[in-house]
Amino acid sequence: MEKELDFIAERIEKYIEDTKKITATPGKGVTRLPFTLESKRCVHYLEKQMSQMGLDVIEDASGAVIGILKGKSPERIMIGSHYDSVEHGGAYDGMAGILCGIEIAAYYIRHGLEPPYTLEIAGLNDEEGDRFGGGYLSSKAFLGKWTTNDLKDYVDKNGISYYDAMILYGYSPEHLIRAERPRKGWKGYLEIHVEQGPIMEDQGTEIGIVETIVAIERYYITIIGKADHAGTQPMDTRSDAVMAAVDVITKLRQYVLEYKGMVGTVGEIHVYPNQINIVPEKITFSIDVRSADQAWLDACIHKISEEVKKKESEGFSCELKQTMSNSVTKMKPEWVKQLEKSAKKLGFSNMRLNSGAGHDAAIIGKEIDTAMLFVPSIGGRSHIPEEYSNEKDLAKAVLTAIHFIDHLQ
Amino acid sequence: MEKELDFIAERIEKYIEDTKKITATPGKGVTRLPFTLESKRCVHYLEKQMSQMGLDVIEDASGAVIGILKGKSPERIMIGSHYDSVEHGGAYDGMAGILCGIEIAAYYIRHGLEPPYTLEIAGLNDEEGDRFGGGYLSSKAFLGKWTTNDLKDYVDKNGISYYDAMILYGYSPEHLIRAERPRKGWKGYLEIHVEQGPIMEDQGTEIGIVETIVAIERYYITIIGKADHAGTQPMDTRSDAVMAAVDVITKLRQYVLEYKGMVGTVGEIHVYPNQINIVPEKITFSIDVRSADQAWLDACIHKISEEVKKKESEGFSCELKQTMSNSVTKMKPEWVKQLEKSAKKLGFSNMRLNSGAGHDAAIIGKEIDTAMLFVPSIGGRSHIPEEYSNEKDLAKAVLTAIHFIDHLQ
Repeated sequence: MEKELDFIAERIEKYIEDTKKITATPGKGVTRLPFTLESKRCVHYLEKQMSQMGLDVIEDASGAVIGILKGKSPERIMIGSHYDSVEHGGAYDGMAGILCGIEIAAYYIRHGLEPPYTLEIAGLNDEEGDRFGGGYLSSKAFLGKWTTNDLKDYVDKNGISYYDAMILYGYSPEHLIRAERPRKGWKGYLEIHVEQGPIMEDQGTEIGIVETIVAIERYYITIIGKADHAGTQPMDTRSDAVMAAVDVITKLRQYVLEYKGMVGTVGEIHVYPNQINIVPEKITFSIDVRSADQAWLDACIHKISEEVKKKESEGFSCELKQTMSNSVTKMKPEWVKQLEKSAKKLGFSNMRLNSGAGHDAAIIGKEIDTAMLFVPSIGGRSHIPEEYSNEKDLAKAVLTAIHFIDHLQ
Repeated sequence: MEKELDFIAERIEKYIEDTKKITATPGKGVTRLPFTLESKRCVHYLEKQMSQMGLDVIEDASGAVIGILKGKSPERIMIGSHYDSVEHGGAYDGMAGILCGIEIAAYYIRHGLEPPYTLEIAGLNDEEGDRFGGGYLSSKAFLGKWTTNDLKDYVDKNGISYYDAMILYGYSPEHLIRAERPRKGWKGYLEIHVEQGPIMEDQGTEIGIVETIVAIERYYITIIGKADHAGTQPMDTRSDAVMAAVDVITKLRQYVLEYKGMVGTVGEIHVYPNQINIVPEKITFSIDVRSADQAWLDACIHKISEEVKKKESEGFSCELKQTMSNSVTKMKPEWVKQLEKSAKKLGFSNMRLNSGAGHDAAIIGKEIDTAMLFVPSIGGRSHIPEEYSNEKDLAKAVLTAIHFIDHLQ
């Protein structure tokens, strides 16, 4: 098996070397935003690899590229991840999962084996949402979740909407609904992805088996007080928006720490007028709170909104604007168990864990049986040019997935 | 006296109407930055008013405009304030004090009286420092505090230095040292200014007599942690720069509140990378702390720097960069008492207070006997287009100043 692992790892390394170069920011990480030249070049690259090994390749109306390998059963398993990246991201996030999918199909072909189910190896489009602020384009299209109006509502920083960008790309946004797939006939969806966190590396584990993809709530909180002279306005007569926000953020952290495994982040802060000598009139800050337990998350958000209300009772004007609300997605328990068995059988150390990041599996898993495999991220880092996962670890995920497919009930 | 007050108030109102129009941002407040067209037009306006009433007018090498009225004694009193403004500021800050000075001279001339001392009515340049980040240009030049290198170091947002701007304005920066005045022969410096805070209006007081101009310390504090994925990095393994800053700011407020009359402001915040889904790597925030008690201020700053050190011991990289350190300036105690007597004699309600804002008087008062009179700011607001002080209150300050000058020992 060691030889097989090395062989697969070498092929994945070659793919990574190739796709790393398909970027709008050479030398500064991978920037592969949806409906751009890089996006098109990447699709062509993946199509070529898939065709050359004998898969039937289609492009769907969302820009996903899918290579089909017929199996003993017409029941299908999609093995996918996304080919878009964040700006100045890494070479593994998303892409590694597609390449593992390709290697799963390549294994069956190379060994003259017919897979038990028909495999669809999918390179999905725009999971990150980095260009238009949307995200999950292909996975939501798979479930028929887009309307033409949605496509017009999300715009990039130049004011170009999904709708416009698709036309410029040679696509028909009106036909995006054609990407919806019938729910019947699916055995399920499997996604291999880099962990993007430090847990597996810290524990020295080779295979991560996702139990739950966490629920995510995102808000922008705006607190408006009163601008005053930083020297002449006594402390007890100020309505200092920054000081009010500091109280809310302190409480946010306190609440998050009360719940095991919950995370809370204030990643973005905008102060107005943002001058050293003026008591701040207004602050807007983001909160991103995640938990594998929906009830905990709801309770935490409730407590934070109570803190904001407290600031309102102190005379501030406050606004909570929700920008994301993704509920928990549970992986299919029987599949989690089978993945554990497969990894154990192959002698790979493994652990169950939750995914703190959103994935296409979080969308598709709401309606189709789904499982996810994680591969360690070196240093736990991702979304940066230095992002790295060991290709041999990716090969281990490939063999685990094949064993899993072959032993599915 | 009521008639005299109305007469003076009406004249000041006319001046304010005129000078309000000398702005780079018509309809959006007064923007009169140093060494601009507005600056030049304002100097011409003030020169004209001063010449027409018979003052000898000079412009010094810093751009200050000075109208001289000979008195019984060659000993001089400068009555001044600044004609520059912040961006989108009001019509009273600085300018009101110059106009009061003009009206003090006008009073003597109108009544055929010779003042006991030679009066220099001064419109000083660039107190605010809003364009180059410097400030106190004329008052520091008065004391010979500028070097040619300083003038090259301060640059505006377009990269133009004081040095370059002065040349473009038709001035010689090399000759700025000519603005230094001999220390001998001065009775002192008197400045009338709007309070810029709410205290006098809240107490219903007509005349404010400044005892102390507070010490100011300004720093930019930078805290660097580690950027991480907002979903996948467990809370206990994060180095979240925003959370670290929130702790320091909370302590800052706590310390400031321990000292009576001290104020502390975090007016400016910059977060990097400032993205909703990334644990912040870096934050830079300003602190502006002021107190009339130098020892208290020093103790507070020491405590804050200890908090920052604590964050260093938790693994953050931190930097404290000082950008301002103005020590306390005490007004001459005998003059404070004489101003009280004068206000009382004229029947104006009055109070002693400290100035939480810096003023030209804070610079000149370090080496020359100095006093300051405050006039109520409506709503306590300043540095905004809505800034307003009642012209009759300004006229009361004019009569108080004249009584003070006439009764100086």
